[in-house]
Amino acid sequence: MTTVREVGEWGLIEAIAKVVGPAATHEIGIGDDTAVGQLTPGFQALTTLDMLVEDVHFRRTTTSARDLGYKALAVNLSDIAAMGGLPRWAVIGLALPPELEVAWVLELYAGMRELGHVQLVGGDVVRSPGGVTISLALVGEVEKPLTRSAARPGDKVFMTGPAGLAAAGLWCLEHPHAPVEAAWREAAEAAQRRPTPQLEAGRALVGLGARVALMDNSDGLGRSALAIAAASGVDLRLYPEAFPCETATRGVAALAGIDPAKWILEGGEDYGLVGCISPAGWPALTNVVAAVEVGEVVTGSGRAWVQGPMGNFDALDPAGGYRHFT
Amino acid sequence: MTTVREVGEWGLIEAIAKVVGPAATHEIGIGDDTAVGQLTPGFQALTTLDMLVEDVHFRRTTTSARDLGYKALAVNLSDIAAMGGLPRWAVIGLALPPELEVAWVLELYAGMRELGHVQLVGGDVVRSPGGVTISLALVGEVEKPLTRSAARPGDKVFMTGPAGLAAAGLWCLEHPHAPVEAAWREAAEAAQRRPTPQLEAGRALVGLGARVALMDNSDGLGRSALAIAAASGVDLRLYPEAFPCETATRGVAALAGIDPAKWILEGGEDYGLVGCISPAGWPALTNVVAAVEVGEVVTGSGRAWVQGPMGNFDALDPAGGYRHFT
Repeated sequence: MTTVREVGEWGLIEAIAKVVGPAATHEIGIGDDTAVGQLTPGFQALTTLDMLVEDVHFRRTTTSARDLGYKALAVNLSDIAAMGGLPRWAVIGLALPPELEVAWVLELYAGMRELGHVQLVGGDVVRSPGGVTISLALVGEVEKPLTRSAARPGDKVFMTGPAGLAAAGLWCLEHPHAPVEAAWREAAEAAQRRPTPQLEAGRALVGLGARVALMDNSDGLGRSALAIAAASGVDLRLYPEAFPCETATRGVAALAGIDPAKWILEGGEDYGLVGCISPAGWPALTNVVAAVEVGEVVTGSGRAWVQGPMGNFDALDPAGGYRHFT
Repeated sequence: MTTVREVGEWGLIEAIAKVVGPAATHEIGIGDDTAVGQLTPGFQALTTLDMLVEDVHFRRTTTSARDLGYKALAVNLSDIAAMGGLPRWAVIGLALPPELEVAWVLELYAGMRELGHVQLVGGDVVRSPGGVTISLALVGEVEKPLTRSAARPGDKVFMTGPAGLAAAGLWCLEHPHAPVEAAWREAAEAAQRRPTPQLEAGRALVGLGARVALMDNSDGLGRSALAIAAASGVDLRLYPEAFPCETATRGVAALAGIDPAKWILEGGEDYGLVGCISPAGWPALTNVVAAVEVGEVVTGSGRAWVQGPMGNFDALDPAGGYRHFT
């Protein structure tokens, strides 16, 4: 197997360019000082960047390069979806140990190509003294962005996409010998390995022309609710009994002895959308998006509450959830 | 001193947002799923991304966070300059060891702010199990990009900016006790630590409305000549006796016992511009840009040649120069 050290920077870029293919509609792809592209007149530019670090966000021993490329792009596309945007092009930075196989890098790109939605137009490859670090920046566009700050008291809170399924998938991956029903394991692990960015739902929500607050559900419904509440200057109330829950999530949670609502609130990585819309706008929304109502917006000051079994409301801890530096 | 682990991801983002300040003309800065910005109607978008890895591209023991932030942004701005573009906004990814001091991160941003030219609108902060990795993506815009592929036989080859000075600076940093004249050391080390992106020159070249091939001089004049030759399908001939050379470069090179032409050709990190323009366009160019003619374009197939002392031409090795994985 050929290593990155053997082919060198230019050889690696040439090999990547072959996997990526010609940048059909992009004026200038890999090879010049910057990528060049034309946005749709009147649209605003959306820019997002994510970093994925080996042994923090993934392990090469348990994640294939193809799945990793797929997920790295999916997670960024989810941010574009959360603004209601159309993805346009991506630039990718790779810090690579020299002894890494070139085939691994090409599989990473193949995973991104498999997901598609976006042109891969350039980036940077450099040496890493440690593990692999992936940096992916996406440029998209939208007529009018859907932001987190548009929620108003009286709105319904809704979510789209999987609910706790990615957390169920992580549990399955960590318990490879647990007697999980095969179809549940497959669905849950797929949700964890290859999340589906909700691009069509995002576009449909922009198409409503209504006031919609929106973000993507990357860190769990609890963190999403807190983020919308803080950005909009309101409080959000969530009703666990209204949470959608796939059969697979429910089945794996039962085996794990965990309340699936906990996975939905705290598990993260579901990459659906969480949003708020007025009751007047709700019927039109449900005509175009498979959304589930999970709560309501009330006057407040940036807090989020979860209804308990006795009808009481427990405040979500803004410092809770996934913490990146601990 | 407070560490990144102590303040956590959200605390760190809040502290960064204070250093960055409000994104005055940017519609949505740090805090939503993506940054949102409006490009100038009719302009094309330019996107570039660079990765900087600790102990590969910098050492925290010898480079201050402020200089590092300055240089990280300068290097990316140089790519925008090389397309003749206007920089608009940057998104920054940071992989940070948890025991890193928050003050170091804020100084990094302060260095970027000090250089300016661009709005810092978002990004990602994650944990690193090793050293610091910085990923910086820039979005710029231009009416009509100046690419590497526009050189034609008969063109003059020109360069702007420092010539070999950054390599002289690196030598000074590596030889802190060498008896280099203080003014030379200061100029050379400044060129190495804080390169100046040639944004005004790039804009002036676009303003000519002429056919100009252009790239930035990041890896030495030799690699720049090879890249333009390959992209344009021509050969470039360089004349070392015509190379500009600062007094400081010449002085440090004499002390180091090195031909300054070698630093100009192979040293890299000068971050001026290298380009080609027809003799008919040359007078107008010299009216607006401090450029020096260093060679000529001839028919060929992607090679670059350097004139030797006997008038002979030596081919530059496409595999030579800085190699990122060795």
